Amino acid sequence: MAAPHALDRHIALVGFMGAGKSTLGPVLAERLGRTFVSVDALVEERTGTGVAALFETSGEAEFRALEEAAALDVLARTPPAVIELGGGALGSTATRDALARHAFTLHLEATVEEAWERVAGSDRPLARDPESFRALYGERRPLYEAADASAADVDGAVLAAAGVHFGAHRDVRGDALVADRRVAALHAIPATHLVDAKTLAQAERLWRGLELDRSSMLVAVGGGTTTDLAGFVAATYMRGIDWIAVPSTLVGQVDAAIGGKTGIDLPEAKNLIGSFHWPRATVVDTALLDTLPDEERRNGLAEVVKTGLLRGEPLWDLGVERQVRACAAFKAGVCLRDPHELGDRAHLNLGHTFAHALEAASGYEVPHGHAVALGLLAALRLSGLATSVVTDVLGPAPVAVDRDVAWAALQRDKKVRDGRVNLVLLDEPGQPRVTSEVEPARVRAALDELIA
Amino acid sequence: MAAPHALDRHIALVGFMGAGKSTLGPVLAERLGRTFVSVDALVEERTGTGVAALFETSGEAEFRALEEAAALDVLARTPPAVIELGGGALGSTATRDALARHAFTLHLEATVEEAWERVAGSDRPLARDPESFRALYGERRPLYEAADASAADVDGAVLAAAGVHFGAHRDVRGDALVADRRVAALHAIPATHLVDAKTLAQAERLWRGLELDRSSMLVAVGGGTTTDLAGFVAATYMRGIDWIAVPSTLVGQVDAAIGGKTGIDLPEAKNLIGSFHWPRATVVDTALLDTLPDEERRNGLAEVVKTGLLRGEPLWDLGVERQVRACAAFKAGVCLRDPHELGDRAHLNLGHTFAHALEAASGYEVPHGHAVALGLLAALRLSGLATSVVTDVLGPAPVAVDRDVAWAALQRDKKVRDGRVNLVLLDEPGQPRVTSEVEPARVRAALDELIA
Repeated sequence: MAAPHALDRHIALVGFMGAGKSTLGPVLAERLGRTFVSVDALVEERTGTGVAALFETSGEAEFRALEEAAALDVLARTPPAVIELGGGALGSTATRDALARHAFTLHLEATVEEAWERVAGSDRPLARDPESFRALYGERRPLYEAADASAADVDGAVLAAAGVHFGAHRDVRGDALVADRRVAALHAIPATHLVDAKTLAQAERLWRGLELDRSSMLVAVGGGTTTDLAGFVAATYMRGIDWIAVPSTLVGQVDAAIGGKTGIDLPEAKNLIGSFHWPRATVVDTALLDTLPDEERRNGLAEVVKTGLLRGEPLWDLGVERQVRACAAFKAGVCLRDPHELGDRAHLNLGHTFAHALEAASGYEVPHGHAVALGLLAALRLSGLATSVVTDVLGPAPVAVDRDVAWAALQRDKKVRDGRVNLVLLDEPGQPRVTSEVEPARVRAALDELIA
Repeated sequence: MAAPHALDRHIALVGFMGAGKSTLGPVLAERLGRTFVSVDALVEERTGTGVAALFETSGEAEFRALEEAAALDVLARTPPAVIELGGGALGSTATRDALARHAFTLHLEATVEEAWERVAGSDRPLARDPESFRALYGERRPLYEAADASAADVDGAVLAAAGVHFGAHRDVRGDALVADRRVAALHAIPATHLVDAKTLAQAERLWRGLELDRSSMLVAVGGGTTTDLAGFVAATYMRGIDWIAVPSTLVGQVDAAIGGKTGIDLPEAKNLIGSFHWPRATVVDTALLDTLPDEERRNGLAEVVKTGLLRGEPLWDLGVERQVRACAAFKAGVCLRDPHELGDRAHLNLGHTFAHALEAASGYEVPHGHAVALGLLAALRLSGLATSVVTDVLGPAPVAVDRDVAWAALQRDKKVRDGRVNLVLLDEPGQPRVTSEVEPARVRAALDELIA
């Protein structure tokens, strides 16, 4: 059981009875666009009998055999689902073997007291008295703790499934450590390679200087520039080696380092070349944010506001730790649902079509966060929604760029087809949709309104 | 139903009764390291009744319902298998939908006469008289012809499953056509981009000059250099676009253009960067071989001999068309079985560890085919097998390189661990295995024997 994430695998929820698997499971499945399957429910469906009655009439051994058969069937199915296993299912060697092959196992944690409180008085056959309940909890616990990861809530489950962990950057080990020059100096990071731009020249320097083999692990510490660059180098070095992203900026921790997009810029276009190469882990250390320059903090806050609008929650009001966790979990969920951006992942472009046009028209003088803030303003206006969150939290001033140049840049956007711009708008906060129905004149007017 | 290949999908064999699905299916599965599943056999297992008896007792409608349920279950399973569907299974819309989602459908062809000859007198319920048999054949034929590909034998099935087709290079269409400079001139190929080396500089020229979008198709016409380079550019352009390989050399048609390995050379190492990026199709046009320079032909012949030794068949005695087909099918099968070179794909390195050492020691003056021929000689000697095929067909002369330099190069090979070389040897022709058991002194002696 050592799957780093659940990108191409089932998520198997394991844990003691009363841990909340059947409550969390369907919510998690909905977030990830997967089906939810309960092995117990499948056994009940197959036998036409409730689990409690099965225990009663056929005994535990017979139930375990039926449970194992159902678990093996479900684990061998495709596409990847969220699967709830009963508290005792890990007792089967065959089930554990199938889990190791087909699933990312996620331990849903609960103390014995929480668990007992939830199940006492139910008809669960193994929850009849607190002493034997406690003994069983102690006995099974090591099996749960061998899971690939553990979580206590839905956001935690999504983060774990995406391989996103909160921890100290110093504890991350690898065979090469690529770090942003500025971050390495500020945090005394023992980098083997320093970088400061996602260019082909810097990629070449890494490819030629790394001296790794196919089983090596590359670690990248820095903002989106560093993780995009190092992730792309990892994706292509000897046809792909493993890597760990350690984002050091707010943009990186809430967005850029999550979801497997890597790439570098060429003069012709940003991110012109790249790969989808999911990191083995993304390690988020919010202590790295302490040294963040103000402009970088504002860039991050713009993405926090965007995520809050997409989630329909005022994430901008939270403290940094909770803000990062909620945003990272949202991004992770969207990317697990649509890793190759064939569908809903496009929602993450909220405000970004306008932002890219303004950035391009300014020759990339306007900071990304400023441009995104303005882009969110335009998206909210076109959605017919209040713009106060953007003006209050981000307060972006209009920018002085050439209106025609910005409009031309917007129309070159890769999301434009047949003269119609594909825009992400909100029916209401938390309800994004992609539309090409907005009249070009209205799009142009919304863009002009962002320009001083 | 438009899967280009079966890399990540089931292979569903469809076709009329008597086409030979149940004979070919298990052989194909064995070649690809997959399990073979017959839907009819599963229905019989579930009901405890033979298909003929089921028809008799329950009627065709009841059988079709059972068949559909079994097909849907099997198609939803993972990992990808070879699945035999009964001749009438495509009548179900649900089965056709599941095939489109989960399978590469392969039509096993047979004329109505061949089919009748095989099934006449059997207990098949729908093969009772030749007239209704012929009528049913005509009725079902359109459903089979909508399959993703068709084949008449096992090699044909493997080639189709890998997306390898024999055809005219002129019929291949794309949004950009990257071609080898020499080949383009010789065959009047309307290339949009000309290349002649798999270097980073040429990759950069393509990345910057292509002007494609995410839905574009890139076509590459040339030898391994061209397909490796263009395939890598396709793998990384906008995080991956589709491509078609049109190999123009014998090496390309029997080996390099098949199996999804792409990459470019850097001064530090050959193929230092690259991707696994399976082409949508590999189109083999043996007419392109007519203009092949002698040295290129010898390079190809060395790979043909290698493949013949691995397959245990004297492929070197065949005409070009059959030679290419047999070699390409072998390569395709190995790569479908082990696309990311985690196992058996390493067998394709037969002779190549020695070859790479000799090439490196000569500063890449020794032609690849000459080096491979010598490498095969060493592999056969260390395997204790006759070397006459290599000496008779390829007749490689020893090369004049520095023995110590060659030995040092061999030890730097990525297949060396703890001072032991991982060599591919043959227990007998057709029986390769990887071993690290050969004493270094014997390896050194075998290498020295190749040097003048």
